[in-house]
Amino acid sequence: RCMASSVQIPSDLLFRQLFDYQSYTYTYLLADCQTQEAILIDPVLELVNRDTHLIEDLQLNLKFAVNTHCHADHITGTGELKKRFPSCKSMISKDSGAKADVYIKEGDRVVFGNKELNVLSTPGHTNGCLTFVLHHDGRPVLAFTGDALLIRGCGRTDFQEGCSATLYESVHKKILCMPADTPLYPAHDYTGQTCTSVREEKAYNARLTKTKEEFIGIMERLNLPYPKAIDKSLPANMVCGVLEDLPNK
Amino acid sequence: RCMASSVQIPSDLLFRQLFDYQSYTYTYLLADCQTQEAILIDPVLELVNRDTHLIEDLQLNLKFAVNTHCHADHITGTGELKKRFPSCKSMISKDSGAKADVYIKEGDRVVFGNKELNVLSTPGHTNGCLTFVLHHDGRPVLAFTGDALLIRGCGRTDFQEGCSATLYESVHKKILCMPADTPLYPAHDYTGQTCTSVREEKAYNARLTKTKEEFIGIMERLNLPYPKAIDKSLPANMVCGVLEDLPNK
Ligand SMILES: [Fe+2]
Ligand SMILES: [Fe+2]
Repeated sequence: RCMASSVQIPSDLLFRQLFDYQSYTYTYLLADCQTQEAILIDPVLELVNRDTHLIEDLQLNLKFAVNTHCHADHITGTGELKKRFPSCKSMISKDSGAKADVYIKEGDRVVFGNKELNVLSTPGHTNGCLTFVLHHDGRPVLAFTGDALLIRGCGRTDFQEGCSATLYESVHKKILCMPADTPLYPAHDYTGQTCTSVREEKAYNARLTKTKEEFIGIMERLNLPYPKAIDKSLPANMVCGVLEDLPNK
Repeated sequence: RCMASSVQIPSDLLFRQLFDYQSYTYTYLLADCQTQEAILIDPVLELVNRDTHLIEDLQLNLKFAVNTHCHADHITGTGELKKRFPSCKSMISKDSGAKADVYIKEGDRVVFGNKELNVLSTPGHTNGCLTFVLHHDGRPVLAFTGDALLIRGCGRTDFQEGCSATLYESVHKKILCMPADTPLYPAHDYTGQTCTSVREEKAYNARLTKTKEEFIGIMERLNLPYPKAIDKSLPANMVCGVLEDLPNK
């Protein structure tokens, strides 16, 4: 097989990638076209109006607002979406430490209509990082990797419960072991790219193609600036983005 | 059929959407996975390095760099890509007035490997605006609409050879007459959305769901600012983005 190859998603799956120009976050809308049940992965507070209009235009029923992890760079739209769509429940991993209606962990399924995401635990960027995988015809055809694996990169490991050894294991044992054609959709990109594949990251990821020891050294030497939105984002995300629920309010 | 529905692209078609944060331009990489022949639609000069790396990583042969029209908001990457990939030819419509290796018009086909785009003439934003359509299983499954049709909007008609009556006819007679499920990929979006469909634009496009007369009035009253990059972009794009070929150099 060549480097460029493709897999097909179900013909009755709606899939929309959405972007936040401020935090460079990708939000994903998925829906089962038969039942109209939908989920949003990693919605952003400031873009809840946009997402609400799109969900209404497409006449979808938002069932879950799911976070791959407790974000440090933007406030989740989950809490606000629950106000707009009363039947919507928030979802996150228990290990995130954040509040949510439904806690999910490795082996769980996020079900919307006749479709489902399989939940993988991929800690390292934070303890609670999850990766979501949609299967079709017996193979993974969409994987949402959060900040565990980015296009030619990965999430930082110097904040929250960051641990580069753990991240290395997560990416190699949970994500890069999927079939080479598997499309990977990250929580962020800073170069204008929208997706990658297992094959490409195994060949070209500048950090994760290295040995574990080299990877740990690379991550230690990154010397990244203090995350500019972390002091505002983390407390808000611990209460699901509902600012009125902040302890100091 | 519900508002949310999906069509399948060929399993041996590589399709990558790329974005420029400066001019909000979408660039599209398409390749035939069997032959590795590839085309880029609307590449941006400042991102030629990114696009070159991706094409090299995917081991593709770039055959054509195609512009939907002569852009006023960014300089095309076409000329620079031809230097990086000597076998690459530039393509644009004759009506654009711009220089290119190959001129295309309605009814022509842009062939890469076993795949092809059908060329439609969709003037109104400029005289030379083209829309490209990829068919699969006897129906359109991808349409690249340039600035003729944007998500819930359309390109401006107050510059270049802009004519709102012409644009209205182009969009209705060439684009919105395709099957409702047809996914539409614009040259720009300013809201973080990545694609739309014929069904959605027929139902929700704020301008193009109006009558022709109302549309003309809406476009007349937009009162948009002078395009900030036009004085630099237009002369450069007339010579295919090769700045050394500018008459005043
Ligand atoms: Fe994060
Ligand atoms: Fe334009």
